[in-house]
Amino acid sequence: MSATTAVADQTVCAAPLPVLGRDVTVPLVTGGEVTYAALDYAASAPALQRVWDDVAAYAPYYGSVHRGAGYLSQLSTDLFENSRATVAEFLGCREGDQVVFTRSTTDSLNLLAAALPADCQVFVFETEHHASLLPWRDARVTYLNAPRTADQAVATLERALADREPYGPALVCVTGASNVTGELWPVKELAAAAHAHGARIVLDAAQLAPHHPVSISELDVDWVAFSGHKLYAPFGSGVLAGRSDWLREAEPYLAGGGASRKVARRPKEAGGGVDVEWHETAARHEAGSPNVIGVYSIASACKALTEAGFDQLVARENQLIAKVREGLAEVPAVKVLSLFGDDAPRVGVISFVVDGWNSSHFAAALSAEYGIGVRDGLFCAHPLVRTLLGSDPQNQGECGAPEAAPGEKSLNAIRVSFGAGTPDEHVERFVRAVKELVADGARWNYRTEDGRCVPDTNAA
Amino acid sequence: MSATTAVADQTVCAAPLPVLGRDVTVPLVTGGEVTYAALDYAASAPALQRVWDDVAAYAPYYGSVHRGAGYLSQLSTDLFENSRATVAEFLGCREGDQVVFTRSTTDSLNLLAAALPADCQVFVFETEHHASLLPWRDARVTYLNAPRTADQAVATLERALADREPYGPALVCVTGASNVTGELWPVKELAAAAHAHGARIVLDAAQLAPHHPVSISELDVDWVAFSGHKLYAPFGSGVLAGRSDWLREAEPYLAGGGASRKVARRPKEAGGGVDVEWHETAARHEAGSPNVIGVYSIASACKALTEAGFDQLVARENQLIAKVREGLAEVPAVKVLSLFGDDAPRVGVISFVVDGWNSSHFAAALSAEYGIGVRDGLFCAHPLVRTLLGSDPQNQGECGAPEAAPGEKSLNAIRVSFGAGTPDEHVERFVRAVKELVADGARWNYRTEDGRCVPDTNAA
Repeated sequence: MSATTAVADQTVCAAPLPVLGRDVTVPLVTGGEVTYAALDYAASAPALQRVWDDVAAYAPYYGSVHRGAGYLSQLSTDLFENSRATVAEFLGCREGDQVVFTRSTTDSLNLLAAALPADCQVFVFETEHHASLLPWRDARVTYLNAPRTADQAVATLERALADREPYGPALVCVTGASNVTGELWPVKELAAAAHAHGARIVLDAAQLAPHHPVSISELDVDWVAFSGHKLYAPFGSGVLAGRSDWLREAEPYLAGGGASRKVARRPKEAGGGVDVEWHETAARHEAGSPNVIGVYSIASACKALTEAGFDQLVARENQLIAKVREGLAEVPAVKVLSLFGDDAPRVGVISFVVDGWNSSHFAAALSAEYGIGVRDGLFCAHPLVRTLLGSDPQNQGECGAPEAAPGEKSLNAIRVSFGAGTPDEHVERFVRAVKELVADGARWNYRTEDGRCVPDTNAA
Repeated sequence: MSATTAVADQTVCAAPLPVLGRDVTVPLVTGGEVTYAALDYAASAPALQRVWDDVAAYAPYYGSVHRGAGYLSQLSTDLFENSRATVAEFLGCREGDQVVFTRSTTDSLNLLAAALPADCQVFVFETEHHASLLPWRDARVTYLNAPRTADQAVATLERALADREPYGPALVCVTGASNVTGELWPVKELAAAAHAHGARIVLDAAQLAPHHPVSISELDVDWVAFSGHKLYAPFGSGVLAGRSDWLREAEPYLAGGGASRKVARRPKEAGGGVDVEWHETAARHEAGSPNVIGVYSIASACKALTEAGFDQLVARENQLIAKVREGLAEVPAVKVLSLFGDDAPRVGVISFVVDGWNSSHFAAALSAEYGIGVRDGLFCAHPLVRTLLGSDPQNQGECGAPEAAPGEKSLNAIRVSFGAGTPDEHVERFVRAVKELVADGARWNYRTEDGRCVPDTNAA
């Protein structure tokens, strides 16, 4: 096969999926306009065109779900419950698993935290996103130190679980792909370790599900949580799917209509008050009118990704990852943050610092001078980023940190992230921009305003 | 002024606001198709065309909010925070009030319930929607009997508040407009009573805000909760607005990113674990990536209703209410449910039963034979509906109840509800349909399936 054919083949299998905003242009502070390069998918991804089209086609048929007698109510109810079935299939749910619709991964994990059995111990690596790190407020939490290899992660968990006293119910919460380094965690092995020690495990798939297939049954995890807005469906819904027993036995997450099957005043002679019979299905934790459009958009995204084929999507993303990593490797001032090392498998999420640059300043220049949207900061994973930066773990460094002097360690980092909708040009422009900024410096002056680093139009 | 002029004037000021779905046709079981009459606004209202257009125009510019450095992230952040300001203005918020974005009214009231100070007593009428009745699980709740006049409501509350022991913090939760009868509650007077007795008050404005202006400062309530999806913005967001002190002092509603300003491992010698600094603004209770589209859609609806003018909207809705009530009054078999009597001011929400008809059957016939979408059941306000039906308050009657024999009391009811998008033809068709069904009976057979009453196509 000639090189030309190979490139042509790659092009065929490598078209990005159409997303909203792909033609949006933004002004450059240096003059003119450029197509916006959305490279902040790890924070929130644009809607797939297909998802938007589905939502737009449904919107005129929107109706109240579950108890409306009208045609559109019944259509909407079917759409809503069929979406639940689509998500269950997308996640490879087992017989008896529940799919509960929430507002986000954060919400899903807070729901699970509220459903822990009494005296449940929670085990979580300090490297987790705050959404996985913090919800376990009413439980006894063991924070595990950052491992430096995947094997070390499994060994660390096994040791902690074996050592626990008393040997009661336990939950492990772990990310599938880091929102900072993009590195994949050994989920299947961690699940096996958890189960071997009588614990359960929930997978934070917020960063994994948009990039790789996630099967509850194949990974043998107990629950999976993810968000629509990172899965190209930014309409305010999320998912918690998995074992129903803890969920069914827990107090309803929200109290209200939809979750309550029957409510009655208790007679005065029985002490007054109200008696409530709660549902035992997913509705138990879905009080209030559901976000039908949000839920349907997730189902639409699940179908679109499945039909596009994860094999194709992963192959293409790996090409983009290689382009970025190879490009950054040519810039000695750039240090890519990594927990598991260069060879670790990863998704399209890469964080780095640039010697002598404040990361906020660098990110602002990427935006203002190149039309590239990345994120700077600590990415809601403060302990991990501080560990990776080698900074004092105690308290310095927060979003909008002061500029590091040349040669000093950065207090925050820059993150570039991408996915199924990213054209090659975006990551090529990004690599070129990094090289130019490091070689030539910014062409504009910047200042801090409302915690943001912005072009200083007075000082230009 | 001649009658013709009066009608013409009415027509001019009485155009419904354009909503999505206004041209949707649905099949009739008796043959043919008809434009769908969405008369279930109290459950969920269609999107205003203006709201949809705003969302569609924004969607390509969607970006991560709060920490993204890119142009679209900054645009989206501004849009999100400007939406907060729009909602604050819409609600007449006071200096220092907070607007917290939630997923729904149910979520807003659950948030407030989680933010009650220690030993707070809660006072709630048994007539409330479950979303207002049930969230106060960790508090001592006093359920107040259904009043039969607005004055009685105030007197009942005053007596209960005065009698409370100990005289500590207290919260009153009250609806602005009943989701069953549509009747307006004396919010301003209840707020004065609450404050006179050292209590605070939260207004459940889910059914009020779509129909009447709601001003926190004029009503002098402490908080207001409402949902986007009943306010012509069905994109999964809701609002809790009001006093910031209890919210600022409470534990964050959800734990995760966005709510946490700084997170650090605690040194081993200090006991390990993590230290968290939480935000003290609305972000404290908004962990996770916000639903930007949902929030923006609410702001868009607030602007659209304000620009349309509530005076006009109320005047037009009162015409529709009069048409329905006058029409139903001509059918002796129909009994309209009312707590405060015929003269009570109300919004476009009317519940009724029909002698000798099971309400689910009646609602199914309205849908299948007339293309009219209403709701049947107990409307997530079981104690109230049972009181209004005069049925045993204990436990009979739930959604999908068996058919009442002719002459027997219905176990559930039918609700027709409408608003700013409803054309006259919809309520006219509804009145005609009720008259025909009562006079001639259903033209089709119905059966129960999955808890729904549906046309029985085998038995036709």
